[in-house]
Amino acid sequence: MKKRAFLCVGGDSRQTYMSKALCAAGEVYTCGVGYSGGSEIPLASIDDMPQKADVLVLPIMNGEGLEIPGAGGKKIFCTELADKLCHGALVTGGRLSVKQIEYFSALGFDVADYWCREALVIRNCIPTAEGALQIAMTETGITVFGSRVLITGYGRTAKACARLFKAAGAHCSVAARRSAAIADAVNCGLDAFDFNELYGHIPGFDIIINTVPAMIFDRHFLEAVSKDTLIIDLASKPGGVDFDAARELNRRVVHALSLPGKVAPISSGKIIAETVREILLERGK
Amino acid sequence: MKKRAFLCVGGDSRQTYMSKALCAAGEVYTCGVGYSGGSEIPLASIDDMPQKADVLVLPIMNGEGLEIPGAGGKKIFCTELADKLCHGALVTGGRLSVKQIEYFSALGFDVADYWCREALVIRNCIPTAEGALQIAMTETGITVFGSRVLITGYGRTAKACARLFKAAGAHCSVAARRSAAIADAVNCGLDAFDFNELYGHIPGFDIIINTVPAMIFDRHFLEAVSKDTLIIDLASKPGGVDFDAARELNRRVVHALSLPGKVAPISSGKIIAETVREILLERGK
Amino acid sequence: MKKRAFLCVGGDSRQTYMSKALCAAGEVYTCGVGYSGGSEIPLASIDDMPQKADVLVLPIMNGEGLEIPGAGGKKIFCTELADKLCHGALVTGGRLSVKQIEYFSALGFDVADYWCREALVIRNCIPTAEGALQIAMTETGITVFGSRVLITGYGRTAKACARLFKAAGAHCSVAARRSAAIADAVNCGLDAFDFNELYGHIPGFDIIINTVPAMIFDRHFLEAVSKDTLIIDLASKPGGVDFDAARELNRRVVHALSLPGKVAPISSGKIIAETVREILLERGK
Amino acid sequence: MKKRAFLCVGGDSRQTYMSKALCAAGEVYTCGVGYSGGSEIPLASIDDMPQKADVLVLPIMNGEGLEIPGAGGKKIFCTELADKLCHGALVTGGRLSVKQIEYFSALGFDVADYWCREALVIRNCIPTAEGALQIAMTETGITVFGSRVLITGYGRTAKACARLFKAAGAHCSVAARRSAAIADAVNCGLDAFDFNELYGHIPGFDIIINTVPAMIFDRHFLEAVSKDTLIIDLASKPGGVDFDAARELNRRVVHALSLPGKVAPISSGKIIAETVREILLERGK
Repeated sequence: MKKRAFLCVGGDSRQTYMSKALCAAGEVYTCGVGYSGGSEIPLASIDDMPQKADVLVLPIMNGEGLEIPGAGGKKIFCTELADKLCHGALVTGGRLSVKQIEYFSALGFDVADYWCREALVIRNCIPTAEGALQIAMTETGITVFGSRVLITGYGRTAKACARLFKAAGAHCSVAARRSAAIADAVNCGLDAFDFNELYGHIPGFDIIINTVPAMIFDRHFLEAVSKDTLIIDLASKPGGVDFDAARELNRRVVHALSLPGKVAPISSGKIIAETVREILLERGK
Repeated sequence: MKKRAFLCVGGDSRQTYMSKALCAAGEVYTCGVGYSGGSEIPLASIDDMPQKADVLVLPIMNGEGLEIPGAGGKKIFCTELADKLCHGALVTGGRLSVKQIEYFSALGFDVADYWCREALVIRNCIPTAEGALQIAMTETGITVFGSRVLITGYGRTAKACARLFKAAGAHCSVAARRSAAIADAVNCGLDAFDFNELYGHIPGFDIIINTVPAMIFDRHFLEAVSKDTLIIDLASKPGGVDFDAARELNRRVVHALSLPGKVAPISSGKIIAETVREILLERGK
Repeated sequence: MKKRAFLCVGGDSRQTYMSKALCAAGEVYTCGVGYSGGSEIPLASIDDMPQKADVLVLPIMNGEGLEIPGAGGKKIFCTELADKLCHGALVTGGRLSVKQIEYFSALGFDVADYWCREALVIRNCIPTAEGALQIAMTETGITVFGSRVLITGYGRTAKACARLFKAAGAHCSVAARRSAAIADAVNCGLDAFDFNELYGHIPGFDIIINTVPAMIFDRHFLEAVSKDTLIIDLASKPGGVDFDAARELNRRVVHALSLPGKVAPISSGKIIAETVREILLERGK
Repeated sequence: MKKRAFLCVGGDSRQTYMSKALCAAGEVYTCGVGYSGGSEIPLASIDDMPQKADVLVLPIMNGEGLEIPGAGGKKIFCTELADKLCHGALVTGGRLSVKQIEYFSALGFDVADYWCREALVIRNCIPTAEGALQIAMTETGITVFGSRVLITGYGRTAKACARLFKAAGAHCSVAARRSAAIADAVNCGLDAFDFNELYGHIPGFDIIINTVPAMIFDRHFLEAVSKDTLIIDLASKPGGVDFDAARELNRRVVHALSLPGKVAPISSGKIIAETVREILLERGK
């Protein structure tokens, strides 16, 4: 039986490790992707592609256009890729734009975004929490063990952070809205209180980790934060902290975005590869 | 300001401890409830109630009728209670029947079932998991530490069991349906696999905890279970095990129901009291 | 190569499982030992022993004499055993008396007590801690999760108990003498204080676990213990509690001895088998 | 009652935080120590000392002489300090040289080294383990969660590392010599094997943490280490790795020394302050 052919195009080091990990599932060609030293086959140009691919894997996109940024400043355009793909091939990528989805769909390809899949989001919570821990360790002069940590919100990222910081010996508190979330946090051995009581609790923490994508730490709340406290904001842009006010008030804030790719590109690449394989499995391909 | 008056009627030892815990929130009268030694006031008869109650707390019901079973074989009827309550009083109980709800609602009372509230269900996972651990310890000759434990399902009860057994040093595996549940279990440090693969995994476990309210362990699956394995079925009636087949095949099954009340009546009573107070808080009472 | 021959004589269910586990290391004959259903060979009488044994395994002794209590009320005497053993055979048992050691040594056998070996003592801490947890769950109406637990002493048993109760969600405090022990307990995430401060701390606990083999809880200290508190005394006889005073004062005490054999005979039997094999390994046998 | 007077001289940021923490125990004067912003009193020169000190606190020494390196390149000599101290004052410092001990003892002072005290060594294991975790996170592209970690040795540092890496979700194995250490590691939920079997196990790990102060990873052993593996050597100089061979073989090694002062100077300073107070307590001062 013919092996499935993957074409992996562009991206950062996560795509390097993803390509390596995909080798267990078929023949992997890469273009504009750093070489891992594994058994994937790097192409100098898309035109060197020796066969039509069954699966096109795009990186995690940041823009709207059809251009794909690659390793070493290489640029590849979606328009170069269509005739390298089998009829009905799977086209998958991260944070695909409407334009990109429409382009490939119009050509009859089966388009799927791996980045929005629940299982990937859950798996990415681990490197995110480790990134937050690494920041806490690097940016403070205290041990995480014995530190008082506040986590605002109690979604997936918050749960992973709470679990990791508690495991490392921190005293973790959670501020959440729903009484079910509070009960759940208590079951996990955390202190928990209602968001309405947040303001009064603020002064007592060494580290505050925000996971809520809304303006929580405005000027008023920042004034209640101790100058020795480190705030790690994990909420995606624009974040949950008034950064201008923080600067003026001399409060320490790290806006930490895209931690998985930064702190654990190998694990992140593997997570993407697993997700691509799950998409194939689901579709019976 | 006049203290809020509670009338707690009937039930088992959970109601005893609930009544005691409610004393922090008002004046508590009990009838047909064991006395805790606390500051609640036991009444020999409902007719001894010296004032109208703001809140009537009924026990966790097992039947459909208007009769309430109490301590020492006492029987009290809902119909005796209505004129001991203030206008618009809160009437709360566990697993209230339609008949009971209709009766009190028709009289203008505000009826709420504490037993179905999410926060109570979550809190009850802790005594349930402890009950399962206690059964595992009592019913096997091995230590839980180092044992191989399978948990079927990955809802709240399953998560609490997994957390506790893993904490006690067991090797815990989870069989779940959704890929998100599997990813979540892996994040919690558990082995996890798809329900479709359950049959093949069955022989390798010392303890199996079922939390799925559906017939999982039918004759076919039970045949795959080792004779040394203990199955703890936490699913509510009719449970997830073919008990007849288990008996014939000489497989060891414990159908463990209502564990919170059995293993930790004091904690369970407190959980109910907290929930009653939450209901009052929500209604601004 | 001829297989090593074991003769296992007498004892309770631990010896049953030990015999089964030893089958991986040679031919195992048993006399006065319950049959596990495994591949060991039960003998009706010592005289049925078909070959000379390389290793004689005696049970955990309670007395001074040469009599060995066995399953089903059987009695076997050390004097019956000598001529069933090879020249220079290993004779091992638990808590061997001086008389027993002298008897076998005088005959030229190599005598070793498995019960006093450090690795066995350490391994037995796990079933001991699980036994204490089981008692705490059975004997109180509260969940261990969230309970306040005091452990007196910080040797091996104490460490295993602290680890397990903390893992189950209890708030654990340790009272110890040496500042190094206190620092060590704090590193393990426990509250810890000096033994000198014990008296003042006593009233705040739901469960007290004593591991110190000295009279700690005399009448004076027992008076400070709450009536709702459960004391679990793990110290070997005479224990660390004034049991008479406890009875008079109506304090709840469980003197829990020999937990491994009671709560986990299968695991305990395996631990003994592993230890016997270690003794053989050390001696190059 | 007159407050106890401390004179803290020289050192790095740990002494800054130690001085701040000592303020809870008396009047604190500092010279050649960075100012924490707390209530300690910085002196421009030793000659500004307004009273005789009861306690002299020296930093952690690196050399043999009587010179003490201070903040901002300041140099202070032990010989300047003697006449600023009360008769019989406590002189304490870290890694005091024989020459220093003799100098102060000869003058009748009570000399104690805080750095060699068991409780301090134990407390320092926490920041050391966190430093190792930080290195593992920074220097690898994988998550610690799910990584395979080998720890050689099973003393205090090893135990703290094992606990932290396991808590973070790593699969931790321990190589140790004594069967009691192996049993102890197993009780803590770790895989453990005998040092004799180390060579065969080496290839399977992502991260190796050495805590044994002897040449473990010589050229032969390094050849067995995968090129992707990170070795963190926590053993004090000369360490447990042949660094020249590692360079030639292109193996990744971090020799991590003095982690507490580097990763957590605030916590380290507090630990020293607590230790100084313990020394005072012990001597009834």
